Amino acid sequence: MADLTHIDESGAARMVDVSGKADTPREATATGRIAMSAEAATAIRAGNVKKGDVLGAARIAGIMAAKKTSDLIPLCHPLPLTGVTLELDADDSGVTATATVRTTHKTGVEMEALTAVSIALLTVYDMAKALDRTMVIGDVSLRAKSGGRAGDWAAE
Amino acid sequence: MADLTHIDESGAARMVDVSGKADTPREATATGRIAMSAEAATAIRAGNVKKGDVLGAARIAGIMAAKKTSDLIPLCHPLPLTGVTLELDADDSGVTATATVRTTHKTGVEMEALTAVSIALLTVYDMAKALDRTMVIGDVSLRAKSGGRAGDWAAE
Amino acid sequence: MADLTHIDESGAARMVDVSGKADTPREATATGRIAMSAEAATAIRAGNVKKGDVLGAARIAGIMAAKKTSDLIPLCHPLPLTGVTLELDADDSGVTATATVRTTHKTGVEMEALTAVSIALLTVYDMAKALDRTMVIGDVSLRAKSGGRAGDWAAE
Amino acid sequence: MADLTHIDESGAARMVDVSGKADTPREATATGRIAMSAEAATAIRAGNVKKGDVLGAARIAGIMAAKKTSDLIPLCHPLPLTGVTLELDADDSGVTATATVRTTHKTGVEMEALTAVSIALLTVYDMAKALDRTMVIGDVSLRAKSGGRAGDWAAE
Amino acid sequence: MADLTHIDESGAARMVDVSGKADTPREATATGRIAMSAEAATAIRAGNVKKGDVLGAARIAGIMAAKKTSDLIPLCHPLPLTGVTLELDADDSGVTATATVRTTHKTGVEMEALTAVSIALLTVYDMAKALDRTMVIGDVSLRAKSGGRAGDWAAE
Amino acid sequence: MADLTHIDESGAARMVDVSGKADTPREATATGRIAMSAEAATAIRAGNVKKGDVLGAARIAGIMAAKKTSDLIPLCHPLPLTGVTLELDADDSGVTATATVRTTHKTGVEMEALTAVSIALLTVYDMAKALDRTMVIGDVSLRAKSGGRAGDWAAE
Repeated sequence: MADLTHIDESGAARMVDVSGKADTPREATATGRIAMSAEAATAIRAGNVKKGDVLGAARIAGIMAAKKTSDLIPLCHPLPLTGVTLELDADDSGVTATATVRTTHKTGVEMEALTAVSIALLTVYDMAKALDRTMVIGDVSLRAKSGGRAGDWAAE
Repeated sequence: MADLTHIDESGAARMVDVSGKADTPREATATGRIAMSAEAATAIRAGNVKKGDVLGAARIAGIMAAKKTSDLIPLCHPLPLTGVTLELDADDSGVTATATVRTTHKTGVEMEALTAVSIALLTVYDMAKALDRTMVIGDVSLRAKSGGRAGDWAAE
Repeated sequence: MADLTHIDESGAARMVDVSGKADTPREATATGRIAMSAEAATAIRAGNVKKGDVLGAARIAGIMAAKKTSDLIPLCHPLPLTGVTLELDADDSGVTATATVRTTHKTGVEMEALTAVSIALLTVYDMAKALDRTMVIGDVSLRAKSGGRAGDWAAE
Repeated sequence: MADLTHIDESGAARMVDVSGKADTPREATATGRIAMSAEAATAIRAGNVKKGDVLGAARIAGIMAAKKTSDLIPLCHPLPLTGVTLELDADDSGVTATATVRTTHKTGVEMEALTAVSIALLTVYDMAKALDRTMVIGDVSLRAKSGGRAGDWAAE
Repeated sequence: MADLTHIDESGAARMVDVSGKADTPREATATGRIAMSAEAATAIRAGNVKKGDVLGAARIAGIMAAKKTSDLIPLCHPLPLTGVTLELDADDSGVTATATVRTTHKTGVEMEALTAVSIALLTVYDMAKALDRTMVIGDVSLRAKSGGRAGDWAAE
Repeated sequence: MADLTHIDESGAARMVDVSGKADTPREATATGRIAMSAEAATAIRAGNVKKGDVLGAARIAGIMAAKKTSDLIPLCHPLPLTGVTLELDADDSGVTATATVRTTHKTGVEMEALTAVSIALLTVYDMAKALDRTMVIGDVSLRAKSGGRAGDWAAE
């Protein structure tokens, strides 16, 4: 049976030892979406037209969350991130988030990209929840990663 | 047009003033799910049978994240949480998370419940990602809330 | 000689005991300014015209910092803030920040307002520092406070 | 017109990609000052004579804040700091702070030095605010930086 | 058999629900000690005579850690602390720490007092470890607590 | 007289400058123990048999605390940890914790290992405190360290 790397032979959780790995450039891209009512989507886009604070706040929240990933996910390694971008596209039924994170270190940045997306979408949720309580966050997944021993990978 | 409460008349983001609201008991329940390959799901459940560390780690991560919500979501009010439970049910294609959060304060705890669910599922993702890169987190939504001026509400 | 309330009779620092104080509504307003070259000020205002991300990012950073005050200032009491607004006015030689913070608790929120202003201005600094290394942050001070035993106060 | 490096061509904030930069030794020095009444300044110096807790607390707060910089300033890169010193000089009308921060990494430490100075001065403010509500923090600026592609620089 | 309140009937960890409890004044005192070589103890006391920075730094670290308790201990409730004092007594074989923490809330502050003591002693360890690698932290325990339904208690 | 490295010649605390040191692999192991009544020890082991949440929660808390060390201990350098394991052995009178931490950096990880042990034991305390208020945490000490200029060392 396949093994979980974060669980040792006795069943205990651990932060996997990556001491022996080389520092190499790493990049990961993740996406996700929040679906909402037309009314809420319209308000977000209108807010954005005015001064950009809705998507602007969510973007900042997501970028800051990428830096907090190892404080949130118990077994994640702390990493000196070297770049984070976060795109937020609002349409008439929701907002799609795409985060790309880079580092030069011993392990990948998938979790940082996924955390950035998740917190950005939760921030949109928070700012629109007075208008729609039935919003759903979904499709949070990895799109591509590069660097490291495992090589490059992209979702089909 | 409906207004976004977190954006003032000039378009600037703000933490909404709830100073005038009474402290009342509040509760919110949120759910979400991570879908994964049968292989990954089997490994998580096997790990769980042994010592429970996979779902146990995710549960702790989610509970701790509920307490960090106002540090993650820019315009959330800091709240003295009075209770958090987080249920994680693993089946043969993924894990479903359900969080219930309580406080006695001037504003609700929807964001805390949603954050607990999101970080718990991201923790499962982290621990299983060596087995499956195509996992998807979705269906993150509010199920019910009670307390406060707006009264009780439940998703249909 | 006047005494420092945060230092006990033996000279040791302490978090002052406010257990006996009543919870009352509190508000504080602080201001500050970053002075910069015309070139940097123009770029910030141009950025702001486009999508608002410069001042928007600084506003979010300042609001989040208000919530972190007790984590930054060693002897500050943790407070459940009930409202934060942060105004940022860019002109042709810099940006002026004005923060107003509210709580209903046993102690005031001056430090939260001052911290919000300071971190917002440092965020502006960060985003403009490639254009001007000689920017100066100054005039960070309390403008007004209300609530609590000491009563209302305003700077002349 | 000069461009803001933290804003992309579409106007969105980003953490600038420094992945391609080399790790080089970096150092930055910043200063700032809090001006206060003679009474408050005397109390601080008296406290300092006794056991040093006023300036000692501010020094510790500033050093710890340097380490939190990337958690406070949204687009700052997290950096493994290799040294921080913080000098606090009290005179009869205030306290002057000077922070020097070092790292060996892909980007500079100006923001860390400025953050250390700002939080140290806010800590002095907090400890003296019962004696003087009119204190002003100012002259927060970069004095010198070295390392990196841009080379050395010092304020005139 | 006695039950663990933090584990539900299915064996899952939870933050115990205290929503129904009244806000009452609470206080807890904890102590602990670090034992060290005469050389290290002498250096700490000499440092303390000069400017007090060794014990001063440890005191600040302990007070700040009290405020972080709910961020460190997974199932602790976040509490608005209303007072923290931390006494550090250096003698010729070590340092004894005594912390007293107060709040007015629904649950006690034992963990905050114990965390303050632990982190203060770890800070002493850090600052003296170049002189003695065999230091031992021990006797970390609760001395007294008051408030709440369970009433007052003191160690014999 | 021996000098404290964290105190400069004027008596001020500082984060020691390690800029000139090489990045080398480092490892440190620390241990500690919480002593408790037979009743509390039995409940913990029973809980552990069921789903492992008591020791599982403490293990996660300790691993996460290792990553927060530089945020807790004022003069500790922030370090990109490359591995953390935390063993918790429950017997009929308490729990013994052993943490091993690794990095490849300019300074050692003793404080990270000691912090992981301390917070893991405080978490056990928190979860068992309703059963026994007289628990004592002790024997928190360094067992071994390797790497760096000082070379390897082990407690006798």
